[in-house]
Amino acid sequence: MAELMVADPRRHGAPRGASVTFSPDSRLPMDAGGSIEGVTIAYQTYGELNADKSNAILVCHALTGDQHVANVHPVTGKPGWWTTMVGPGRPIDTNRFFVICSNVIGGCMGSTGPASVNPATGRLWGLDLPVVTIRDMVRAQAMLIDHLGIDTLFCVAGGSMGGMQALQWVASYPERVFAALPVATAPKHSAQNIAFHEVGRQAVMADPDWLGGRYAEVGKQPTKGLAVARMAAHITYLSEGALQRKFGRKLQNRDAPTFSFDADFQIENYLRHQGSSFVDRFDANSYLYVTRACDYFDLAADYGGSLARAFVGAKTRFCVVSFTSDWLYTTAEARAIVHALNAASLPVSFVEIDTDKGHDAFLLDEPDFMATTSGFLESAAKARGIGA
Amino acid sequence: MAELMVADPRRHGAPRGASVTFSPDSRLPMDAGGSIEGVTIAYQTYGELNADKSNAILVCHALTGDQHVANVHPVTGKPGWWTTMVGPGRPIDTNRFFVICSNVIGGCMGSTGPASVNPATGRLWGLDLPVVTIRDMVRAQAMLIDHLGIDTLFCVAGGSMGGMQALQWVASYPERVFAALPVATAPKHSAQNIAFHEVGRQAVMADPDWLGGRYAEVGKQPTKGLAVARMAAHITYLSEGALQRKFGRKLQNRDAPTFSFDADFQIENYLRHQGSSFVDRFDANSYLYVTRACDYFDLAADYGGSLARAFVGAKTRFCVVSFTSDWLYTTAEARAIVHALNAASLPVSFVEIDTDKGHDAFLLDEPDFMATTSGFLESAAKARGIGA
Repeated sequence: MAELMVADPRRHGAPRGASVTFSPDSRLPMDAGGSIEGVTIAYQTYGELNADKSNAILVCHALTGDQHVANVHPVTGKPGWWTTMVGPGRPIDTNRFFVICSNVIGGCMGSTGPASVNPATGRLWGLDLPVVTIRDMVRAQAMLIDHLGIDTLFCVAGGSMGGMQALQWVASYPERVFAALPVATAPKHSAQNIAFHEVGRQAVMADPDWLGGRYAEVGKQPTKGLAVARMAAHITYLSEGALQRKFGRKLQNRDAPTFSFDADFQIENYLRHQGSSFVDRFDANSYLYVTRACDYFDLAADYGGSLARAFVGAKTRFCVVSFTSDWLYTTAEARAIVHALNAASLPVSFVEIDTDKGHDAFLLDEPDFMATTSGFLESAAKARGIGA
Repeated sequence: MAELMVADPRRHGAPRGASVTFSPDSRLPMDAGGSIEGVTIAYQTYGELNADKSNAILVCHALTGDQHVANVHPVTGKPGWWTTMVGPGRPIDTNRFFVICSNVIGGCMGSTGPASVNPATGRLWGLDLPVVTIRDMVRAQAMLIDHLGIDTLFCVAGGSMGGMQALQWVASYPERVFAALPVATAPKHSAQNIAFHEVGRQAVMADPDWLGGRYAEVGKQPTKGLAVARMAAHITYLSEGALQRKFGRKLQNRDAPTFSFDADFQIENYLRHQGSSFVDRFDANSYLYVTRACDYFDLAADYGGSLARAFVGAKTRFCVVSFTSDWLYTTAEARAIVHALNAASLPVSFVEIDTDKGHDAFLLDEPDFMATTSGFLESAAKARGIGA
């Protein structure tokens, strides 16, 4: 097992970047069958683990997020993706909690994924990497948590695909999660969810530079296809209302339409920018893997069709959060989670936040969401005996 | 002016296919500037024009529809796109009304479009064809209606982009439309509408076989990009509820997931089929033109921002129809049309049909929609003095 510390660990409480590569005997079993050896997990931590090891919060990232929750991103130079929520004095307070976030298996920011080397062959994994499920991601995270010597997580929190991981954590390791905060998520992918993901995958695979997934070996990238995939997906992250408020039919740096196929409208310019900036930071094959993981997610199916049964044996306290204008993972889907938790007799708070910002609201400055999170963690910390 | 009759006109009441090419002196002015000469309009008619020429209904087709409303499609061999609505004894009764439908300018079923020959150069138009607007489409239709010797249309009816044309007809030719039936449509394209269309266009243009729009000259077709565009668009035609009811998470011809990027789910298989069958019947450049026409549509903008002003001078009676689960062109947008018609003191009925079938409901067997159409046309025919 090799440990690599990337950031300076001497500055107390500063973000620490690390990566752990497990020895061949610690194989990671995969839902697709078989197991993979030599798994690497790249992660960041913030704050300090207390003596009891009782204050660890695992933050799970969304589809194209990564472990850089609250530090400047090493590739983009932009702030971390959840700086509204994680940091000193923030709702997930790094002065109080030890926050861990790892890049998911199948991702492209240092954890084992299609763009990393298969130790058995010395070649890039590409599509030879078994398809990854949410449960596989969580299984890998559990190996990391073991490695860090933590028995029970104080909380598992995440939005979107991160929320699926939070649910899966409680199902897979009911004894190891004291509290869970699944946000803007669903217990399974709907037909519409799968449809949008399939469009994205087809866009990637339609790009001749994808080369059956072997593009990296010849120094190519299916950037055009991946950009189209991102554009399509991005529409689903925003509400119709937010798009109308932010862009409407405003023109981009012009007074009149050009009657052409240029980006006349601001929304077109915005989408094109979302596509082109995405391809600079994300791997096309990883995009196939993470979208596929979501599509296969159907927690109830693993428990005879009963979502409540997924939570049997757990004592986890939950806070489930949805956003009114999120049409990707709707409040109705959050309610399905809450009903199952009720049926499993688990303590659950449910908060629907009123916002027009759509699915992306979980990443944005939403005071009610932050207050909800602070309150939930405060109460759970008290119950867990974690000092302020 | 050259007239070409395609079908057999001798069988009374049978569909007649024709195409008219206007002489160079009958130029079609374009909103993008300038005008085009030698415009061809391909159209179908059903039923007989009465002696008063008072029973003509112009049906306007949607984005990728065409003039083959109620006869077997010459390319696909499938029934026309509105056989539920148009035919003998149907709500738009061809025993009673003379029904005309023309392929829009910019289309690819015989009317002047990017895949037709620019008479000035002898080359295919490609992207040299000026960008087409809904108003241009309607201006071309008016040339056809003149050509057919019809002064006033009894009714202009259409869904989706066809509904935009119906609205534009009343705005452009207020004296020439007795009744109008805009269905599942909007008075302007929203930011979200534009966004989805832009994704489709980028998918087409990202395909290396698009060749800057010159693919046809070298015998190519950007089929992969166009298929992705169609897949993305198709999701917007269906409601989340209909997708869930029809497909849910059902697997395609298998009992268990394969953990691969195959079309494991029925919804994936269905979408792929939608994409691949579309490219057999539709031209990629035309797809750019018709989507762009919708994006530029903003009827109020042409009248100082007042939609009501677009209808000043008209005496047209309206029936506006929306569908509850249509999230592409919502009931709220239909209401905006109705409010403007009210403000312009035009007689208007508004019917919202309760259905889970989404935008595509206007093409499907919806008894309430058919009854609404029958009732509206019956009442209008009485007012117009058209016999049963």
